[in-house]
Amino acid sequence: MPQKTFPMTEKTRIKRGANRASYDRDLAYQIIDEAMVCHVGFAVKDQPYVIPTFPWRVGDFLYIHGAKGGHMPGQVADGGKACIDITLLDGLVLARSAFHHSVNYRSVIVFGEGQRVDHVEEKADLLDRMITKIDPARARAVRAANKKELARTSVIGFGLKEVSVKVRSGPPVDDEEDYALPVWAGVLPVSLTAGGLQTDPQLMADVPMPDAAAWSVFGAPQQR
Amino acid sequence: MPQKTFPMTEKTRIKRGANRASYDRDLAYQIIDEAMVCHVGFAVKDQPYVIPTFPWRVGDFLYIHGAKGGHMPGQVADGGKACIDITLLDGLVLARSAFHHSVNYRSVIVFGEGQRVDHVEEKADLLDRMITKIDPARARAVRAANKKELARTSVIGFGLKEVSVKVRSGPPVDDEEDYALPVWAGVLPVSLTAGGLQTDPQLMADVPMPDAAAWSVFGAPQQR
Repeated sequence: MPQKTFPMTEKTRIKRGANRASYDRDLAYQIIDEAMVCHVGFAVKDQPYVIPTFPWRVGDFLYIHGAKGGHMPGQVADGGKACIDITLLDGLVLARSAFHHSVNYRSVIVFGEGQRVDHVEEKADLLDRMITKIDPARARAVRAANKKELARTSVIGFGLKEVSVKVRSGPPVDDEEDYALPVWAGVLPVSLTAGGLQTDPQLMADVPMPDAAAWSVFGAPQQR
Repeated sequence: MPQKTFPMTEKTRIKRGANRASYDRDLAYQIIDEAMVCHVGFAVKDQPYVIPTFPWRVGDFLYIHGAKGGHMPGQVADGGKACIDITLLDGLVLARSAFHHSVNYRSVIVFGEGQRVDHVEEKADLLDRMITKIDPARARAVRAANKKELARTSVIGFGLKEVSVKVRSGPPVDDEEDYALPVWAGVLPVSLTAGGLQTDPQLMADVPMPDAAAWSVFGAPQQR
């Protein structure tokens, strides 16, 4: 069993806004599980790159994927150092003073070295779990990846060992004397919201529409 | 006048999904102007870091800010190399085959070397424009940053010169033979949506609530 909290390291020690820092594993996992996008940072010599991609988690590993032969997999899949940022924006924090404006958010920063998944059945299972993150029923319904597709795809795992969490929530915090100012203050909450399903114009007749409202990714209770 | 398109460079040449690539300056600016979060990548020796922060644009510069003495400003403010990723998620693309699942998105990648804004009046003006991105009326109403606050804040500009855009939109694209499968396919649109304003419990009496519906950040026509 992994520890309930991540150890603080030189890289994950949060110096600014330390009161917003957390190393709680469950909280990190909730944020990762809700996220539809992560931002993968790597460096080629001294040149940094950041690439957006879809993150999913299985146990104590974070997975991403990409085209075999692509730039990012080539850099991070075989032990290359990466820093992965996941940020969920929860609100704009509107203070009485310009300086104390902020945002409410939940973010996770993962440091690690990528491990390429070579075993074809493990890779197939992991890609299945990527679809499962959206909808478990969908993972069973779709045409599964064939050998050629699996061969064209790199799946890369990162052990969740060196991780920090930062969360801001609640109303603005102004300087004491500014509370007397007649300036509206508060929070504008924001969230990623799904609209109605848009059916592919080329869909064959009589295929029922899935019940997106039941998808865990939008229905799961959210840690705010 | 800057060119209408960004020149393609070694770093910004998009190799995968080149049909989704763009170097259009107006499109890049629309995406930057809509974004509430960007992801700033930098490297300390061979160790990559990615930090989320709020982006805003003035003319042909992208600005970010941070606490003076913070890790990120220290690394990127004085000519340090950075890669800034802005990604707006527009939808989940649900194909008949697992392999052709995708997301609809608009993303901008900016490469550049940060320039610290030292002039105190320029810095004050730029921070004012950061609030203006949320609401121009608010920028005028709030208590402006004082000298001490300005001194504690680093503002960092990046010339928008080496920039690429990537956009995916529309329905899934499946393999020809898969269109005969009885699997629902289409798009689940998603967007960052604002809820109702939450007034600070400590707000003084009789301060009118702003009209958030008029804020450009949520009302601006969106390039999809």
